[in-house]
Amino acid sequence: MPKIAVLPGDGIGQEIIPQAVRVLKAVLAEADADFEFQDYPVGGAAIELVGKALPDETLQGCREADAVLLGAVGGHQWDHLPASERPETAALLGLRKGLNFYANIRPVRMIPSLLATSTLKEDVLDGVDMVVIRELTGGVYFGEKGRSDNPRSAYDKMSYSEEEIRRILVQGFETAMLRNKKLCSVDKANVLETSRLWREIANELAKEYPEVELTHMYVDNAAMQLVRNPKQFDVIVTENMFGDILTDLASMLGGSIGMLSSASLSGSQGMYEPAHGSAPDIAGKNLANPLATILSAALMLRYSFGMEAEALRIENAVEKVLEQGYRTGDLAQAGDKVVGTIEMGDAVLAAL
Amino acid sequence: MPKIAVLPGDGIGQEIIPQAVRVLKAVLAEADADFEFQDYPVGGAAIELVGKALPDETLQGCREADAVLLGAVGGHQWDHLPASERPETAALLGLRKGLNFYANIRPVRMIPSLLATSTLKEDVLDGVDMVVIRELTGGVYFGEKGRSDNPRSAYDKMSYSEEEIRRILVQGFETAMLRNKKLCSVDKANVLETSRLWREIANELAKEYPEVELTHMYVDNAAMQLVRNPKQFDVIVTENMFGDILTDLASMLGGSIGMLSSASLSGSQGMYEPAHGSAPDIAGKNLANPLATILSAALMLRYSFGMEAEALRIENAVEKVLEQGYRTGDLAQAGDKVVGTIEMGDAVLAAL
Ligand SMILES: CC(C)[C@H](C(=O)O)[C@@H](O)C(=O)O
Ligand SMILES: CC(C)[C@H](C(=O)O)[C@@H](O)C(=O)O
Repeated sequence: MPKIAVLPGDGIGQEIIPQAVRVLKAVLAEADADFEFQDYPVGGAAIELVGKALPDETLQGCREADAVLLGAVGGHQWDHLPASERPETAALLGLRKGLNFYANIRPVRMIPSLLATSTLKEDVLDGVDMVVIRELTGGVYFGEKGRSDNPRSAYDKMSYSEEEIRRILVQGFETAMLRNKKLCSVDKANVLETSRLWREIANELAKEYPEVELTHMYVDNAAMQLVRNPKQFDVIVTENMFGDILTDLASMLGGSIGMLSSASLSGSQGMYEPAHGSAPDIAGKNLANPLATILSAALMLRYSFGMEAEALRIENAVEKVLEQGYRTGDLAQAGDKVVGTIEMGDAVLAAL
Repeated sequence: MPKIAVLPGDGIGQEIIPQAVRVLKAVLAEADADFEFQDYPVGGAAIELVGKALPDETLQGCREADAVLLGAVGGHQWDHLPASERPETAALLGLRKGLNFYANIRPVRMIPSLLATSTLKEDVLDGVDMVVIRELTGGVYFGEKGRSDNPRSAYDKMSYSEEEIRRILVQGFETAMLRNKKLCSVDKANVLETSRLWREIANELAKEYPEVELTHMYVDNAAMQLVRNPKQFDVIVTENMFGDILTDLASMLGGSIGMLSSASLSGSQGMYEPAHGSAPDIAGKNLANPLATILSAALMLRYSFGMEAEALRIENAVEKVLEQGYRTGDLAQAGDKVVGTIEMGDAVLAAL
């Protein structure tokens, strides 16, 4: 029986995960698929429970599962901890590295009924449909870092091996093959040696994918182009930190970061989570938008279990409730039906 | 007599610089100020002339000048050179480092008559008025970098000293004091050690500027917030690479990258240049927008020569021609008077 490790985490993570699990279970039941769901503590919740943001049992449980569904981690009560022990860093980076989830996939699509929500003009956004692929276990995030005193100084090393670059670029080319065959590789090759190696390998791989139109773009220009003319993009592939920045930015093209789902893949395994954080300011108030998590559950069915029809059922249900005018606060405009987290979950269930 | 080193560079640099120089000379003549202008080769133009993107005489000329006015550098004909010898890298990074221009100031202001030009909604942009301050001589741009073979790998070291961080943050606080006293320091302190040192020093300095409201924001969130709600920002200060990405992005808030001026300062000296590149595709066709360069000339009068009234004259003239409907191609909408580079220069001169 397929196993799903469920890690609600902190803040709104505790509210959005139950909604995604309800939706998943309903879809699986109708498909006569028997899955096992097992909860594990992670983040601040785990610090309180066992003194560590990423307990060994949680890591082990995730290893043994076929897929991981993660909510969000972090909160101000853990701000006093050294940065490397805080929930966001210890848990998220620990899970990514520990399970080798090197490929982070974030689909950015403008759902027509959300057009009014965005800060960008409707004609600029109408039809936006891209996938941003972010390398997730390398680069400056995981390089050696250090500090000296008197006078103080600090460093972080950004490094990449051929193998790390190749596998994420392959993911980019393969994704492009399934879509419009346009791959934009984002780097800063005019300045960085890691980017030069990146570009070199991208150009080599391009020969193996003659059908894919590969372009290169500098990261500063990419940030600008995402706002200037987002429809030019089909698949973007980039390194860890650039991807961090560009995906948050790109979330604005889908209306709200509350809509941005993500899959973090490693061969046969996957972790699925919303791109947003634990939003301590609205936690516990039934205000959070569960849709990014519900859409992440759809990605789980698609990528980890090959259940394309069921993934689409969830995605269509989400589109339908948005068409019906249901909105959580982050998406609300005058005249919308503003609902809470649970009510949004109800609506999606009803729309399945 | 104050000396200005003029470095037109490549591509549209050769077209936009003459327009800025005309405007400068007109304003200086009316102010009875005698300045000496001296041209120097830089970038690809200098490679063709003397085999080096940043010739020694150019660097020396800039050192001896009170201010440098730079156009743009680079072009596809130099793409075959190793990245470190290409015009953009060798000339720009060489000038910045060689003259220690550590503080890059990029004012981002939505000029009301350009509201229709942007891809963001008008109510989101109306009133945007911020300054982005980017550290320009440190970080991963100038750190040690290297490459190994078999298997290939590469690295770039991001490092910062206390002194480097402090002086740019001081620039941030001082700029905030002259404006709305709100400083947003952008970093990635949840992951990077350099960012943790950055944040530490920012918090220390905040005690010396009790009137300034200091906030910290992660770079991924900052990229999103610039699109979600740009009016929340007054002064942003950040390190080199984050600033590279965020200023290009922020240029969209001013309508076009063709409007984004910049000052790179080092104590008493300054270099002034548009934030855009040499645009080889439109070079030589009288199509380039000279306004970012003309506005950079205004910054020169303000920062290098304390000529605030003259700086304002130029800035007001630019606003006026835009109100009159003059537009280069990058800003044009249906119904606008589309003009060329030279005609735009004429219009600004007439509007002074
Ligand atoms: C919390 C942080 C370490 C994380 C990252 O930067 O990777 C987050 O911003 C994300 O994008 O998932
Ligand atoms: C050309 C390049 C090296 C440069 C930079 O990244 O600094 C440019 O993008 C800029 O912003 O001035």
